[in-house]
Amino acid sequence: MSPKITTELLKQLRQVMKSPKYVQEPIQAYIVPSGDAHQSEYIAPCDCRRAFISGFDGSAGTAIVTEQHAAMWTDGRYFLQAAHQMDNNWTLMKMGLKDTPTQEDWLVSVLPEGSKVGVDPFIIPADQWKRMSKALRSAGHDLVPVKENLIDTIWTDCPQRPCKPLITLNLSYTGVSWRDKIVALRSKMAERKVLWFVVTALDEVAWLFNLRGSDVEYNPVFFAYAVIGMNTIRLFIDGDRMMDPAVREHLQLDSTLEPEFKIQVMPYGSILSELQAVGAGLSPKEKVWLSDKASYALTEAVPKVYRYLTPYTPICIAKAVKNASETEGMRRAHIKDAVALCELFNWLEKEVPKGTVTEIIAADKAEEFRSQQKDFVELSFATISSTGPNGAIIHYKPVPETNRTLSVNEIYLLDSGAQYKDGTTDVTRTVHFGTPSAYEKECFTYVLKGHIAVSAAIFPNGTKGHLLDSFARSALWDCGLDYLHGTGHGVGSFLNVHEGPCGISYKTFADEPLEAGMIVSDEPGYYEDGSFGIRIENVVLVIPAETKYNFKNRGSLTFEPLTLVPIQTKMIDVSLLTQKEFDWVNDYHQKCREIIGAELERQGRHEALRWLIQETEPLVRVQ
Amino acid sequence: MSPKITTELLKQLRQVMKSPKYVQEPIQAYIVPSGDAHQSEYIAPCDCRRAFISGFDGSAGTAIVTEQHAAMWTDGRYFLQAAHQMDNNWTLMKMGLKDTPTQEDWLVSVLPEGSKVGVDPFIIPADQWKRMSKALRSAGHDLVPVKENLIDTIWTDCPQRPCKPLITLNLSYTGVSWRDKIVALRSKMAERKVLWFVVTALDEVAWLFNLRGSDVEYNPVFFAYAVIGMNTIRLFIDGDRMMDPAVREHLQLDSTLEPEFKIQVMPYGSILSELQAVGAGLSPKEKVWLSDKASYALTEAVPKVYRYLTPYTPICIAKAVKNASETEGMRRAHIKDAVALCELFNWLEKEVPKGTVTEIIAADKAEEFRSQQKDFVELSFATISSTGPNGAIIHYKPVPETNRTLSVNEIYLLDSGAQYKDGTTDVTRTVHFGTPSAYEKECFTYVLKGHIAVSAAIFPNGTKGHLLDSFARSALWDCGLDYLHGTGHGVGSFLNVHEGPCGISYKTFADEPLEAGMIVSDEPGYYEDGSFGIRIENVVLVIPAETKYNFKNRGSLTFEPLTLVPIQTKMIDVSLLTQKEFDWVNDYHQKCREIIGAELERQGRHEALRWLIQETEPLVRVQ
Repeated sequence: MSPKITTELLKQLRQVMKSPKYVQEPIQAYIVPSGDAHQSEYIAPCDCRRAFISGFDGSAGTAIVTEQHAAMWTDGRYFLQAAHQMDNNWTLMKMGLKDTPTQEDWLVSVLPEGSKVGVDPFIIPADQWKRMSKALRSAGHDLVPVKENLIDTIWTDCPQRPCKPLITLNLSYTGVSWRDKIVALRSKMAERKVLWFVVTALDEVAWLFNLRGSDVEYNPVFFAYAVIGMNTIRLFIDGDRMMDPAVREHLQLDSTLEPEFKIQVMPYGSILSELQAVGAGLSPKEKVWLSDKASYALTEAVPKVYRYLTPYTPICIAKAVKNASETEGMRRAHIKDAVALCELFNWLEKEVPKGTVTEIIAADKAEEFRSQQKDFVELSFATISSTGPNGAIIHYKPVPETNRTLSVNEIYLLDSGAQYKDGTTDVTRTVHFGTPSAYEKECFTYVLKGHIAVSAAIFPNGTKGHLLDSFARSALWDCGLDYLHGTGHGVGSFLNVHEGPCGISYKTFADEPLEAGMIVSDEPGYYEDGSFGIRIENVVLVIPAETKYNFKNRGSLTFEPLTLVPIQTKMIDVSLLTQKEFDWVNDYHQKCREIIGAELERQGRHEALRWLIQETEPLVRVQ
Repeated sequence: MSPKITTELLKQLRQVMKSPKYVQEPIQAYIVPSGDAHQSEYIAPCDCRRAFISGFDGSAGTAIVTEQHAAMWTDGRYFLQAAHQMDNNWTLMKMGLKDTPTQEDWLVSVLPEGSKVGVDPFIIPADQWKRMSKALRSAGHDLVPVKENLIDTIWTDCPQRPCKPLITLNLSYTGVSWRDKIVALRSKMAERKVLWFVVTALDEVAWLFNLRGSDVEYNPVFFAYAVIGMNTIRLFIDGDRMMDPAVREHLQLDSTLEPEFKIQVMPYGSILSELQAVGAGLSPKEKVWLSDKASYALTEAVPKVYRYLTPYTPICIAKAVKNASETEGMRRAHIKDAVALCELFNWLEKEVPKGTVTEIIAADKAEEFRSQQKDFVELSFATISSTGPNGAIIHYKPVPETNRTLSVNEIYLLDSGAQYKDGTTDVTRTVHFGTPSAYEKECFTYVLKGHIAVSAAIFPNGTKGHLLDSFARSALWDCGLDYLHGTGHGVGSFLNVHEGPCGISYKTFADEPLEAGMIVSDEPGYYEDGSFGIRIENVVLVIPAETKYNFKNRGSLTFEPLTLVPIQTKMIDVSLLTQKEFDWVNDYHQKCREIIGAELERQGRHEALRWLIQETEPLVRVQ
């Protein structure tokens, strides 16, 4: 990896920062955040502006360029990568270290008195704007919105914004029509006495209209906004995608509909002026509902007195609770995914000893097996295929420079998943193709105990996921071990593999209570720098639990694993398992054998079936 | 309980709300919060203004009086009590119910346009003022500080503010001299670049100067403020308490000292003007450190640009970590407390079957036994002595109207504690004097399992207490049971029985990480309305834990029980215990037998010793 030479680019950027063509007054600093206008976790190439200007292409980072300096804030995952990818025009600001200044403090320390700091108001979320603006103002500076994105003005070969065809999902996949989703949304709006709702997150637009796209890799979404009124529906979307007869039919664009279900299709870029028009027409007590993470530009389009901001939108919450059709789809997707992984692990077991399988080859093979399954669309994230020390790099992705060959002497960790038309998967298995050491087995077993502690937990209705996080760590803690990431995230239904508002983590307390129908991952791990990584991840469905008593009639919940892939018993130190854990493993493997076995049989995959049967042999106690 | 007739009082209050003698312009509403000027949990009689105006004397509640209305906000614990104690001038606002308006919303709904709402700026914390003021302003009203407390102007027989003699604590109790505490505080101030620190919480003043008082029942504190500069110490305190030679000697008031350790004693009431003088003399970048819960009056005394506010002060955090002398004192206090409880339970076992012991008699007897112990000062809170259905009332305190007789047919719950000169205790035991039912034993055993899960937990250095809360609930959750309170609170060292900044609860995430030397309670419970209550509470010390491995060199922590009182084995369903839990109970009882047995022997309390030995017989497994 050689660093990107940015001297010329920075010179150009500093010129446009003073150019009356783009800024009313010269700005002394320009902020380049990571995100897109929808606050997406994964972004399209045309939105990778921070990577373009700096060379650093990790998933998290903020660049700030002043007349004299260029600085990049990123977190511990990316210190090394950023240092490699950036030339010496850039100063790396290591977030999380004690002596690293915040962006605000740094700006205040380097800016001349009364400076103007610019940022694209479409990219910066309203809550971040507020914080930054306040800090700058109290030091005598101003944060100013710069309408045209300054990176775009110097990015001559900027890729086009993707505008790929849409997929329509019928009732058998979604369970609820878009009309009924609009009705439910309007009833939530009525409850809160708001007249308008602005849909800004891409997965929320996709979910609401039962449409999917492929504008962003791994995420089946498309660039669009929507504004829902009590009697109007406006969809802001570009390209000829609305010309597709299947889409027209699906959205009933050519039918005679009650006016309140008539969708007005408008250009993607007209959202701001349309929203401003909505804002201008409001009378007192009429409110517009927005996520508090929506962009500053859209938030400002609505006068402050009319804004109703919440951390989670009603769509985000409704989307998280999967209905019967979605749940069945997720089950089907996970069965197909397990078939692919049985094929893969069977193949690896034969090929790895030959010394010809690299991390990249294994990842490609996993994709190949998945792509053979019905309704496969694409992967749901970049496969983490890592052996030996690479397994300890939590967000590892094999590239030629790091690509390692799998062997019978190292632990192999595979974290992978796919988008199927009926559901999204995300599974991690850690295996050894030779003989694991006692220490490796010990660590694996603690992780397994944590995985089971969450998966088998019973907890009252209304419990937030973060209250379960410590269950996953208890066995590790007992021996002085731990892992430095959360335990689980929400998973979309043929949508983003990471979605809110629920999760299992010691970090976020803004999560919404778990409800039956929600789907999260359960993925504790243990990582030893320079040696190995262990993670065991299932996607699990929140279901009602039967309990002996029922305090205050609250009811109880537990989890049902949707992922049905054998957990390598060779890695388990059975003597460390309680009877309950021992039974859990055997029950889980019995279920894998029955359900995945039947599907392997049906698909005529006899060799993989033999592998499954061998891998799901019940544990036995050694006395 | 008959309600207090408040018609005349409200009439008087409404008059002074318009009187130019007290308010510049008439106010349309007056807020009467619960607290005192130090945001104390327990308050002195002279500060019970809300109880005086309304009749309602529960520990939590806010009264608001307008020209037409009088309303009282309180929470679920007090709905019944407030309804009984208030006459029909008052509207009860049941907090936590869906349809109950917030104070702000209610004020906005009843006030005429452009109203002024008054409050005593010394009583309202700055953060509450900010919230309330913002809400009122956005509706066109004003929150205004009313200098003289309006309740005090009509409270003709208001008790005097207590001004009781002080107790000086020498190094053998405190471990650190007040001089060294000042030095440590100044070094924290230098770290944060602040020049002044304002001590507003009563327990923080007491801790800093190694003094104790008895101005507030159960809490060994005294009314005072302090302002610490880098070269000055000002103590604001009333009465002739500073004439006491022991106090003068302790504070070295008559010695020739380096000027930076010379304590200037000033009248309690002069804090505001002195602080205003400090604030007026500041130059840019000079900061004054205050708790963000300090009163609005004191916070406003410092111009906003000079304020440095934090949720926890450096004193609060230093006070929480007990040094070796404090820890040893706490151990001694808990041994004495256990002796008293062995005497009590031995006595109860003989007396209860006679049918003559009421909840009040039992509570008095507990106090009597405690008062026989060395360095006993007073109780640390009102004893919760509750039998049968009264046990299900979590904050129960027996009064003649509810006083129930203990019997061999009901569960008895005793939550009690004392202040000794060397430490503060707080212990709950739940016992049966006859034969408990299988269901009662089952519930007790789940609570015990939760208690052990926390007490025996091993967790990394830096873990916050709230991450341990679910451990206490897991066994109850498995059967569909739960309890609706937190699991633990910080405990002072001959100071307040509830203190921050650590605790174990699903509710508070603002707690500071647990550190070796911190002391908290571990008190899960189970309550069945109308039948019984179960709680098992020990005070436990955070200590380093030995673990097999040591991830990232972080080190691990666990708890050591300071409370050493037998847990009634008759209540335990041994078949529900794991081997680890079974061993924990036997080890704990062995420790009680050894340590408390030796002390009972030393004190010649042979009958109680026999009881202890009988109660600490090891559990046996019934095959």
